[in-house]
Amino acid sequence: MQRRPSAHVHEASHDAPPHALGADPDQDTAAVIGTLLERYLAQRREEAARSSEQFAQDVIDVLIDVVLRGGKRTRPAFLWWGWRGCGGESRGTNAEAVLKVATALELLQACAVIHDDLMDGSPSRRGAPAAHVAFADRHRAAGLRGDPDDFGAYAAVLAGDLALVWAHDLFESAGLDAKARRAAAPAWQAMRTEIIAGQYLDLYGQSTGVDSPEESLRVAYLKSGLYTVERPLHLGAAIAGAGPDLIASLRRAGRSAGVAFQLRNDLVGVFGSDGSGEPSGDDIKDGASTYLTAIALQRARAHSRHEAERQLRDAIGNRDLAPEDLRRVRDLLTRLGAADAVETRIEQLTADALTVLEQAGLQAPARERLPALVRRIVEKRPAG
Amino acid sequence: MQRRPSAHVHEASHDAPPHALGADPDQDTAAVIGTLLERYLAQRREEAARSSEQFAQDVIDVLIDVVLRGGKRTRPAFLWWGWRGCGGESRGTNAEAVLKVATALELLQACAVIHDDLMDGSPSRRGAPAAHVAFADRHRAAGLRGDPDDFGAYAAVLAGDLALVWAHDLFESAGLDAKARRAAAPAWQAMRTEIIAGQYLDLYGQSTGVDSPEESLRVAYLKSGLYTVERPLHLGAAIAGAGPDLIASLRRAGRSAGVAFQLRNDLVGVFGSDGSGEPSGDDIKDGASTYLTAIALQRARAHSRHEAERQLRDAIGNRDLAPEDLRRVRDLLTRLGAADAVETRIEQLTADALTVLEQAGLQAPARERLPALVRRIVEKRPAG
Repeated sequence: MQRRPSAHVHEASHDAPPHALGADPDQDTAAVIGTLLERYLAQRREEAARSSEQFAQDVIDVLIDVVLRGGKRTRPAFLWWGWRGCGGESRGTNAEAVLKVATALELLQACAVIHDDLMDGSPSRRGAPAAHVAFADRHRAAGLRGDPDDFGAYAAVLAGDLALVWAHDLFESAGLDAKARRAAAPAWQAMRTEIIAGQYLDLYGQSTGVDSPEESLRVAYLKSGLYTVERPLHLGAAIAGAGPDLIASLRRAGRSAGVAFQLRNDLVGVFGSDGSGEPSGDDIKDGASTYLTAIALQRARAHSRHEAERQLRDAIGNRDLAPEDLRRVRDLLTRLGAADAVETRIEQLTADALTVLEQAGLQAPARERLPALVRRIVEKRPAG
Repeated sequence: MQRRPSAHVHEASHDAPPHALGADPDQDTAAVIGTLLERYLAQRREEAARSSEQFAQDVIDVLIDVVLRGGKRTRPAFLWWGWRGCGGESRGTNAEAVLKVATALELLQACAVIHDDLMDGSPSRRGAPAAHVAFADRHRAAGLRGDPDDFGAYAAVLAGDLALVWAHDLFESAGLDAKARRAAAPAWQAMRTEIIAGQYLDLYGQSTGVDSPEESLRVAYLKSGLYTVERPLHLGAAIAGAGPDLIASLRRAGRSAGVAFQLRNDLVGVFGSDGSGEPSGDDIKDGASTYLTAIALQRARAHSRHEAERQLRDAIGNRDLAPEDLRRVRDLLTRLGAADAVETRIEQLTADALTVLEQAGLQAPARERLPALVRRIVEKRPAG
């Protein structure tokens, strides 16, 4: 087997046999997760096609598209490095069970993404049509009866449900031993409710226009930070049998890093990132209550900049915002110092996460890899 | 403790202490399931309120309303009698674990109901507003920003997701021992995908107007029969450690009874039932592909009754159908002999289920109670 050059070749892998998962998870967690997703989805598709080929070729194939197109596998990576940092091994039966649990996180994420895109009316995701749009397109192309958009929305609800169900099936069948399963259960259980609570608070915030910076940080934490970093680390550590102090450290680091991650996403959504073209400004249009806009409104009020406040309030929640209006909003956010304030907050949160990780006494190579992963998700580019 | 008079007092309960579950599950399974649902939902609400009171009082309270208003607890009853019929005990630790698994079925059902009502645009359920309507009403009453109906739809998606997640948590925490859990896993796993497949085929059928009677029976089986009777019986039997022959008998009986149950629902939806007032005719309006309409179309074609066929086709999928049009459709279905054909099919399926149950060698009192339950769900009144 030819080994690809890599800056992160784990020592133990030098004379080990080719990894059954297609790659060494320490070297390329994302590739391993991708392989496991492909295998799992193919197996479930085959089973389901036995009761309905129509269901398989419609709902399951759209779900598979969403999942396999899926990005950086950030959540599984945190789970993996939580496990490794608390003494979990890089290969063998337990490692494979942990990787399957990590893979289940991507299916939870698929449900969140599919239902979220539907709620936000987002037409696309990672350069392809969002699930509800893909379903509507298929309806149109087949010339079916009824409203294509309604069909698309309902089929997307079901595709998300399916991802949720399969996430759980995969967690169940991952092969954790009884002790690991018991240790993981509380985090797994809490996380799945939290994701839904976070999505609801996001939706609710769009309906109320809550604009306290502290409340918007809480929503950022619940809607994305918690299940992107803290709970994956928690799960990995719990499965590895970590004690309460180590788990508490990882959760604290995860909390800070997770909120920083969401603040970065908020910035990227409004200001874009190098080479990514014009940003969508979807949060502004949807009226999402982000820390960025909350800080801007707070500052406008504090300095009696009534015209700036009025312009911001008019823009937030205006679905028909034109590109030039969005540029004006960006100027305002910059001039009010809100963008800088968010950058500063990201730096503080990241520094906190890194300090806690440094003092946590993690095992190598997670001692280096976990901080690197935190830096990657908060740096100035679209993260996901 | 005062005992309510009952035709079905189980012998063993005469000198037993008051049941910890508020009732003897052999006497009143529905009451026990109601108690377990109340307790479980109250506990989960309390936990979730710690991260967000807003989420608890909005999403969880609407979910609790839907679940606690919830009908006859048919699915849990089949699971319970499957367990009892295969030798499972009526009380003790194992019985309580089984009842919790049975309770989880009601949460799955809540997800199906909430997402289904949304897809079908049904304004009400069991005499109260459907979840998406309840959410929209709250949005309107609070004078929130944005479109109340969109908010209602999205919040209903999340409430259904929550029910799905909690169903699984309850299954997990029910307290099945490792052997029972392994035995139950395949049925539990298959059922949850099947529910979604059935909902999709229902949606898809509305878009294509499939009208083969055989295909419509397959949809009836997948969308409701399978998870109402067959899988609950399967789960109960598997947890009780039943052998493959007994499981196969129960599944076969469940398949016939489940399809008969759905055919009865189809009839009730169009013709109503004694004392229930004017039927909604929702299946006709939604263009659902039911056995009833498929048989009618087949007969109209076979006897070259072109005008009847045209009238039927115009009515099916017409959301603005007036009450007098619906009455005309009923007349047509009767004159074409379709209603009688469905009754005959229900009788055949019920007879098959009862014969199989009689020969299955079930333990008392399930030997009598299970056939009675089958008769109840197929008799001429709304079942659920």
